Amino acid sequence: MKNLLIASTSTVYAGEYLDYLTKEMAALFKDTEEVIFIPYARPGGISHDAYTEKAAKAFTKIGKKLIGLHTFENPVEAIKNAKGAFTGGGNTFVLVSALYRLELMQPLREAIFKGLPYMGTSAGSNICGVSMQTTNDMPIVYPPSFKTLGVIPFNLNPHYLDPDPISKHMGETRETRIAEFHTQNTVPVVGLREGSWLRVKGEEIILKGELKARVFEQNKEPYEVESGTKFSNL
Amino acid sequence: MKNLLIASTSTVYAGEYLDYLTKEMAALFKDTEEVIFIPYARPGGISHDAYTEKAAKAFTKIGKKLIGLHTFENPVEAIKNAKGAFTGGGNTFVLVSALYRLELMQPLREAIFKGLPYMGTSAGSNICGVSMQTTNDMPIVYPPSFKTLGVIPFNLNPHYLDPDPISKHMGETRETRIAEFHTQNTVPVVGLREGSWLRVKGEEIILKGELKARVFEQNKEPYEVESGTKFSNL
Repeated sequence: MKNLLIASTSTVYAGEYLDYLTKEMAALFKDTEEVIFIPYARPGGISHDAYTEKAAKAFTKIGKKLIGLHTFENPVEAIKNAKGAFTGGGNTFVLVSALYRLELMQPLREAIFKGLPYMGTSAGSNICGVSMQTTNDMPIVYPPSFKTLGVIPFNLNPHYLDPDPISKHMGETRETRIAEFHTQNTVPVVGLREGSWLRVKGEEIILKGELKARVFEQNKEPYEVESGTKFSNL
Repeated sequence: MKNLLIASTSTVYAGEYLDYLTKEMAALFKDTEEVIFIPYARPGGISHDAYTEKAAKAFTKIGKKLIGLHTFENPVEAIKNAKGAFTGGGNTFVLVSALYRLELMQPLREAIFKGLPYMGTSAGSNICGVSMQTTNDMPIVYPPSFKTLGVIPFNLNPHYLDPDPISKHMGETRETRIAEFHTQNTVPVVGLREGSWLRVKGEEIILKGELKARVFEQNKEPYEVESGTKFSNL
């Protein structure tokens, strides 16, 4: 049975790294002392070691040991044997490129379908969708494919931002960008605002956190859904 | 001799499409009555015909006829014979995919090096750089490569936005994203604010418009350059 926590962001405004998710993390990883950390998204180009250290600090608060996947000689075996996994945010192109290069995409997908408790934030959440094609990140490396884990049947737009009504900036809004995605693709998109997350248990996907989410379907007006909504039709 | 006008945006706040560039356009295209329009970036998924019609209206103001490249049976020949070309904005992934699919990237590059007067806005400017890897657009289609025309020796970030000091949003700023680009790439990046453009004549590249631009080089603090600056060291 799938068991995931898919968060828009790692850190809410004025908060500490992962602090707002502590309770949820403790519940997700209740059956293991050790969680594998997937550090490949490298926010700001941080090293795998430094990123793992940062994330490990947050996990000590729930009494768990976090081990960087980059420290294993055979990362595919490490994922197969894992009892929990967390993929941190950063650049989705860098993350997806690394997962393909290390041939981890398929084993990670299989492990999640078999019940591996998985947590993602930002880029680590993006990869749960069908493709990474609604990421906000810059294409700083060229991945072999935009296809991602597909453990939920839609795409995500993390850090979803509403249009600023007083902005004089003429670049596209997030909503315009997602509308453009739907001129080329049929996959629905859930815009997750800061502090929102999805809790996946088996085929049930529930919106959590205080805010609404914005849902985008091809050839439909975008609409808002309340916290607590089950995404059973997407 | 190269002869280009590379603009951050097509439209400044409260302005009409291309209005702020009218004088510059008239000078760039002074030796031709006919300009080829490259409509493939399709902002908001607009059709090639509708996009060409919109752009053609702005060109009638300077007494020029604009013809969509999509209306030619042989677009490669059309580019080879063109006396002027304009690539409009939209989605850079869609534009670059089309240029590769139609085998236009190399002929367009060659024509520009031979002196084809070329104007780009937004996505149409992005492709003048070494790669499209500092675009702000969503990866809504998968292009065969991120390499672009390389008619200027650096990359662009059009619609450059300064960090908002009062924002509570935790997504990456534009500056953070470009810094991440430089963890993976050595190519310099010029952040062009709304209403700024580059005028290229031969090897001379000058910043125009009222605003400063922000320059990002690997392993250096980003810095501002004044309008009128020649980018001779990038």
